Amino acid sequence: MVEFAVTIIGSGSAVPMYGRHPSAQVVQHGESFFLIDCGEGTQLLLRDAGIKPFRIQVILISHLHGDHVFGLPGLLSTYSHLGRSEPLVIYGPKGIQDFLNSIMQHSELKIRYPLEIVELETTGVKKIFETTDLEVSTFPLKHRIKCQGYLFREKKERVRFNKQTLTDLNLSPDQIKSALQGEDIFLKGELISHEDIFLPPLAPLSYAYCSDTAYSPSLSTWLKSVTVLYHEATFLNDLEDLARETGHSTAREAAQIASDAGAGCLMLGHYSSRYKTLDDLLAEAKTTFSNTILSVEGKQFKLRELKEVS
Amino acid sequence: MVEFAVTIIGSGSAVPMYGRHPSAQVVQHGESFFLIDCGEGTQLLLRDAGIKPFRIQVILISHLHGDHVFGLPGLLSTYSHLGRSEPLVIYGPKGIQDFLNSIMQHSELKIRYPLEIVELETTGVKKIFETTDLEVSTFPLKHRIKCQGYLFREKKERVRFNKQTLTDLNLSPDQIKSALQGEDIFLKGELISHEDIFLPPLAPLSYAYCSDTAYSPSLSTWLKSVTVLYHEATFLNDLEDLARETGHSTAREAAQIASDAGAGCLMLGHYSSRYKTLDDLLAEAKTTFSNTILSVEGKQFKLRELKEVS
Repeated sequence: MVEFAVTIIGSGSAVPMYGRHPSAQVVQHGESFFLIDCGEGTQLLLRDAGIKPFRIQVILISHLHGDHVFGLPGLLSTYSHLGRSEPLVIYGPKGIQDFLNSIMQHSELKIRYPLEIVELETTGVKKIFETTDLEVSTFPLKHRIKCQGYLFREKKERVRFNKQTLTDLNLSPDQIKSALQGEDIFLKGELISHEDIFLPPLAPLSYAYCSDTAYSPSLSTWLKSVTVLYHEATFLNDLEDLARETGHSTAREAAQIASDAGAGCLMLGHYSSRYKTLDDLLAEAKTTFSNTILSVEGKQFKLRELKEVS
Repeated sequence: MVEFAVTIIGSGSAVPMYGRHPSAQVVQHGESFFLIDCGEGTQLLLRDAGIKPFRIQVILISHLHGDHVFGLPGLLSTYSHLGRSEPLVIYGPKGIQDFLNSIMQHSELKIRYPLEIVELETTGVKKIFETTDLEVSTFPLKHRIKCQGYLFREKKERVRFNKQTLTDLNLSPDQIKSALQGEDIFLKGELISHEDIFLPPLAPLSYAYCSDTAYSPSLSTWLKSVTVLYHEATFLNDLEDLARETGHSTAREAAQIASDAGAGCLMLGHYSSRYKTLDDLLAEAKTTFSNTILSVEGKQFKLRELKEVS
């Protein structure tokens, strides 16, 4: 089965504290690896999390604040030094090309592999690329500077065989292939129903990344029924004013978006360094949206499992 | 006694491997803390090494290659977020102001403490600042881009009391103060000789940082009799040609500089990621200069002790 999972590299905000690192996470869908944001230290933390940096084919940057992007030059440089030859595409807000050009020029960073940088600017949800099974879109977040969220949606239901029937009927690989293509299967002259061969399919999964953003009700429309919503929760609700001033959200606001969107699961992140422990953030969100979890450094979350937590 | 020590934060080169990090080290002289170079991750690694980032008053950058400078924006940002108010001075090669300006502009990095950036360009050794007890100079290295080395020299011999005599004679604090000021001390009408009160003074210590650089014989003239020479040794001698091409040194060349300078101790660093272990680099240097040691992440080296190793 194609694995759809997210591994948290950094769950912190501007200041790395209490073992929390600046924003970065890896979305894996089958053989596709996408890095979202790239705070300082990401290249090392990827290895710590068991992800080979070379597996990443696409990097999606939300915005150019340092805690989301200061690890990018180092990662791009390491790719060159270690002889990467596979193409890399970076998506990010307008300005990312200039940001990288300036660093490359001053630091003599030479890119020795095909690198494409795509600048995004959208008013609503816009598809940016797709793989065979997955569609990746972007949408604007409400932050102090241009900031993009990202949405990963599986295109199709996931087919499931009824393993017991397959064993009992002893179907050949060719017959299974035919069944997958929707053809009728006959065994000893008898038609085998597709219901016998297949279990009900699993619904497509989806994952949305919203960091950094102030409370933005449009998100719940754009991310309707998302399986797992990663939404920043920089502050507790008693700092609602500070959240508004700085373009961030409280845990309660994150939960409100998850609730309005009908998300399957809410994952919090981008915690302010003022919070040594995160229990209060979790508790606050849970009062509005019960299936809330905390993002944690180095942990891999399988989307299918998160959906079923409650 | 004023402590004069260096703590290694990163001993590696372009690619962080085998637990080695990009270049950074802290020179401590009494209450003065100087950070030399600031590779990615330095702000976190400082804490791991037991050095509070706020203690650093001056940052000295050798050059703008990423493995010496990609941790600087994050450290400057963290200082702002954590409310630093003490002034910070950064010395570095021409271009460092532009490099930082561009990053600050793109990432909205706001510096909320007095920050002075001084661009250096020298043809020989030039004093850049001093404290009560220490003089700090810069000199050019021979690299692919503008690159500065740094030299820290204690200004004075270090006075040592003869503790036994002080106890036997039972001198008052005022008498000790007078002795320190060179005045004659009388005890029961009898002149006490300074030789009785003081042991022979300790010679001033010095430390030089040379990374990154190709073999550059001028260094041995500029750094004559330096107590501890940190000199890059990116490659073994069988890669001499690659060292020359890339503006780096071999372990043998580093040892030749130490030998010609009459250094007390040679510390190697900036190891290529092709070397999993460093024994061969150490052995190669030792054939030319026996008092050679390896820089190691997180380790503090006291200069006085290194001088006495042989």
